[in-house]
Amino acid sequence: MADGSPIETEDLIDFVARALMARGVPKADATSVAGLMVEADIFGYSTHGVFRLRQYLARLAGGGCNPTPKISVVQETVATAVVDGDNGLGHLAMAAARDLAIEKARNTGIGWVGVRGGNHAGPLALYVRPQAEAGLLGMAAAVGSANHVPPYGGSDLLIGTNPIAFSAPATGPDPFVFDMATTVAAMGKIKTLLQRGEPMPEGWMVGRDGKPLTDPARKSEGFLLPIGGPKGFGLSVAIGLMAGVLNGAAFGSDVVDFTKDTTSPTNTGQFVVAIDPAAFGIGDGFAEEAARVFSEMRASTPLPGHDPVRLPGDGKTALAASRRENGLTLNAALRRDLNALAGDCDISPPFPNDPAA
Amino acid sequence: MADGSPIETEDLIDFVARALMARGVPKADATSVAGLMVEADIFGYSTHGVFRLRQYLARLAGGGCNPTPKISVVQETVATAVVDGDNGLGHLAMAAARDLAIEKARNTGIGWVGVRGGNHAGPLALYVRPQAEAGLLGMAAAVGSANHVPPYGGSDLLIGTNPIAFSAPATGPDPFVFDMATTVAAMGKIKTLLQRGEPMPEGWMVGRDGKPLTDPARKSEGFLLPIGGPKGFGLSVAIGLMAGVLNGAAFGSDVVDFTKDTTSPTNTGQFVVAIDPAAFGIGDGFAEEAARVFSEMRASTPLPGHDPVRLPGDGKTALAASRRENGLTLNAALRRDLNALAGDCDISPPFPNDPAA
Repeated sequence: MADGSPIETEDLIDFVARALMARGVPKADATSVAGLMVEADIFGYSTHGVFRLRQYLARLAGGGCNPTPKISVVQETVATAVVDGDNGLGHLAMAAARDLAIEKARNTGIGWVGVRGGNHAGPLALYVRPQAEAGLLGMAAAVGSANHVPPYGGSDLLIGTNPIAFSAPATGPDPFVFDMATTVAAMGKIKTLLQRGEPMPEGWMVGRDGKPLTDPARKSEGFLLPIGGPKGFGLSVAIGLMAGVLNGAAFGSDVVDFTKDTTSPTNTGQFVVAIDPAAFGIGDGFAEEAARVFSEMRASTPLPGHDPVRLPGDGKTALAASRRENGLTLNAALRRDLNALAGDCDISPPFPNDPAA
Repeated sequence: MADGSPIETEDLIDFVARALMARGVPKADATSVAGLMVEADIFGYSTHGVFRLRQYLARLAGGGCNPTPKISVVQETVATAVVDGDNGLGHLAMAAARDLAIEKARNTGIGWVGVRGGNHAGPLALYVRPQAEAGLLGMAAAVGSANHVPPYGGSDLLIGTNPIAFSAPATGPDPFVFDMATTVAAMGKIKTLLQRGEPMPEGWMVGRDGKPLTDPARKSEGFLLPIGGPKGFGLSVAIGLMAGVLNGAAFGSDVVDFTKDTTSPTNTGQFVVAIDPAAFGIGDGFAEEAARVFSEMRASTPLPGHDPVRLPGDGKTALAASRRENGLTLNAALRRDLNALAGDCDISPPFPNDPAA
């Protein structure tokens, strides 16, 4: 394969699954996690897709992540549940939580399913987009997998980027799918800049001296900044309470840094929600009304220097279809990293003939 | 009463109730709305308390708000409902939604209750704090009562400040109660600065030329800015979908500006959620674990120039108790306004002997 040629998505899924299996993950679980990891890249969440394979393999090898978890529902009502991920790969518990939330929403209007004993599960979009594609509204949130943020006005790292995501159906090609960290920048974006050798914009991080920090290699010396100052702080605490404490999962000082520590269970907490508009009396009319509002917004005259207005999720359906058909183009650093991981796992590399890799 | 002396909370409730009754609101409804409006001031939400009486009276007088609504549940499952506020004062539908959400949470772990046909209902904190005081988690959100924000990169006012609020129990004097607009500043704060004759900080609003706007008297010439740029935009759209579209309420161009228009129903949409930690297997342990995390945060060494870390809600219990005991001190402009409203309504004024009022 020549430098920078796309890789077929099936081939990438196959490679990721084989790498996970080399670290003891059974084939069915490895295939489903690999599918979700590649799905993240297909939809453009490149900081949360196969880029994370090195971390996942390190935690499986180190004993911090259980390769053979038994995912179970440990608490349940008609509308709520708690899924215990048994410290397995995070995608497994979150996919189970998502499917259970959808089932409950179909029956009682809403399903709110928490996760304990989870792990990093890729972008939350994976766990809300299917709701929208099924005509439901979705919501999900997570306690970040490392503490990079102090409480507002403080200097101790006690909070993660605590992301939250929402989705909704809309008539037209694209559902509304919105996935954000509650910090100005997500750590994944900073890691991508580090890999590319590019600086961070001012405003993403500050050092302990309170001055802007722009070198991504010095990220461990500073803090991520929450959006809107005290507002992002309050929002990230609310997410920590609902995704962490409510589910008996970690929040605050008991959060394990899943990058630095490959041996300890993280007890990551998340939740997934599905809501059926039929229970609210609007049903399929929801998608039409959402599309009406979105059309108004897209038709708004752009401010000087701005592109036309886009809604979160716009263009993703076509992007994903194109990548499923034509394959994924990964950057050279990632291709090199995946080839190196293949060597570590003693499996055939995904880019055997790539001179840059 | 001398200039600036506190007014007893009972006297203020009585005055507000009499003013609402003078505009046709039955005594029971007037008393309950007045109680919630004064409660907002007691807890420090002064931009969303009795300060809003002038607007509410204008909409009642103008026919935009129904003085004698029949609040009804128009959709219902064991875990969800939609309350129709029949275009009455917004506090009535939201209080009903909150109480129903709490009842459903006790039975099925969660209650998610939407509102259509509502109106401005004061601060969302009124509809989440009771959950936390009852040992539950709370969440609420609303489509803002006027469009002050364009879609990100656009120039048409299609979005409100769309606030969201969260609450949770915590062992100790104060529950977690967090109530934020998804804009950098809430319009209520800008109205307070206008009343006080003070400028806005840069970053709250921009003009249509893209330049900072700091004169609160020119607020109608510019846009409010969302927190975190596209993140605040995405969050405010998600809230608009869940609080507006899902409930068959207004969002986008059909939002009525409740300040400028006193004659049209607003069909305001909101929702209130309650979650019972008992259904998640943690029960009363939630409050203890939340308090553990909050203690860690409060103990964090302040950054240079910052006060000790506070959690949203800290100090509110003592503040409210003190105000309930000693009365409320309102600023001169508000005292004058309330006295003037008393004249309009032909009822006795709340500050009969106040030279500044």
